Amino acid sequence: MGPRWKGKDSEAKAFKDPMSKIVWELQSSLIQSESQGLLCGCSVLLAAEAEQAVLLNRACFGEPISAAEKDKQWFQLGLEEAFYLCYSLKCLNIVGEDKCLMNVEEFWLLMKSRKAIFPDFYKGYSHLRMKNWVVKSGSRYGVDFVAYRHHPALVHSEFAVLVSTEGGGDVNGRLRMWSDVHCTTRLCGGVVKTLLVLNINKNGQGAFSPSCIEKYTVDERTVRRWNPEKCREDHTVVESETNNHTVIENGTKGEFII
Amino acid sequence: MGPRWKGKDSEAKAFKDPMSKIVWELQSSLIQSESQGLLCGCSVLLAAEAEQAVLLNRACFGEPISAAEKDKQWFQLGLEEAFYLCYSLKCLNIVGEDKCLMNVEEFWLLMKSRKAIFPDFYKGYSHLRMKNWVVKSGSRYGVDFVAYRHHPALVHSEFAVLVSTEGGGDVNGRLRMWSDVHCTTRLCGGVVKTLLVLNINKNGQGAFSPSCIEKYTVDERTVRRWNPEKCREDHTVVESETNNHTVIENGTKGEFII
Repeated sequence: MGPRWKGKDSEAKAFKDPMSKIVWELQSSLIQSESQGLLCGCSVLLAAEAEQAVLLNRACFGEPISAAEKDKQWFQLGLEEAFYLCYSLKCLNIVGEDKCLMNVEEFWLLMKSRKAIFPDFYKGYSHLRMKNWVVKSGSRYGVDFVAYRHHPALVHSEFAVLVSTEGGGDVNGRLRMWSDVHCTTRLCGGVVKTLLVLNINKNGQGAFSPSCIEKYTVDERTVRRWNPEKCREDHTVVESETNNHTVIENGTKGEFII
Repeated sequence: MGPRWKGKDSEAKAFKDPMSKIVWELQSSLIQSESQGLLCGCSVLLAAEAEQAVLLNRACFGEPISAAEKDKQWFQLGLEEAFYLCYSLKCLNIVGEDKCLMNVEEFWLLMKSRKAIFPDFYKGYSHLRMKNWVVKSGSRYGVDFVAYRHHPALVHSEFAVLVSTEGGGDVNGRLRMWSDVHCTTRLCGGVVKTLLVLNINKNGQGAFSPSCIEKYTVDERTVRRWNPEKCREDHTVVESETNNHTVIENGTKGEFII
């Protein structure tokens, strides 16, 4: 399943204006303005001047929120977005709820205390962002994230992403039941997305500091419904409604049929 | 959300031919012929003469399967269907894989060993069947069952059913994550079904024999997505795609908004 561009010029527009360049411009701008994000519950608020607001919108970080200030546009960043700007791009400082600047380690510990699965989610988020996917919340589809090839104004999201951790310590208990796998792949099919499971391997590392996650590795697996009739000789057969076979493909060439 | 009848005469047809009467006719017929079901892995095979085959089809028990025998139609019954005919309707005897007749207690123990959640699933299945709902597998929608008001030829299934058990001993780990709730309610909305969660209360009973489940009670809760805009004054507002609120309604008048 390839990208579904919105309108005929969108692909050309995206090609001319790569996401890596937009994010680089945003990073430079935030560094230059010594930007500070204000921690507020489970999000971070960031005030941006007009030009920076355009960059945040183009790079798809945060959601613009209404505020009374004329010259400033406020953005509400999710925890992973804020941490990505703070830790991976090193272009945002975080001010805690006590109005004091937090260092990265303090911010990390606070994120973990507010969201137990934060280290895994952040690894998944940053893994995709570093490959220049635009990553947004997947809650409307009952998944952790959705991933877009470029700006959502130009293209529909291509992947519905679930973050999973191997071993007994998994705090994101999805896809443990076949009925959940069936439900998720059926929904993904209906909204024309591919289910992408990011399996976070901790490789014996803890999550004491952000540097731990540098040693995590990520297995990428796509999961889709499989139709035995479609996969035989006659490719014109209409998809059977009763089919619930599932195919898992991993990041390399291997394929498991389950 | 009411029933979606297939065609304009379907509702009248269903009214004239109530499911309770069809099931009663099937029960009488199976008792008269001293029917035997052959246990085969996780299903039970039942051979039916022409008239009985019509009744099994009308009552929606099992799936007809191809076989070489001319005068007999074979049906493949699911575990819950077979146990319902055997235990609740007392109209089917079960022959084990060793070709010997099994009593109800032996059949129960074997079902439990093949499917750990069988007691809970059976309670859910029989709870709905006894209220004259037609209950079939929900695997195509990633749920445990689907429930039809009458025969699937006349009406679309109205409820997508998940069986849940209160307390620590739950072996059906669905709806533990918000993302799973979002995924399931979103899919149910898309296929025009209401999510019905049957919560099985064991009331301190075990599952040593089928008589234990007589003391289980069932809470029925429907869960649906909730749209704050739709629920305000203006009822013409188009449903927001970003909405993920969920409403749980229980069997009585209470309503929880979560």
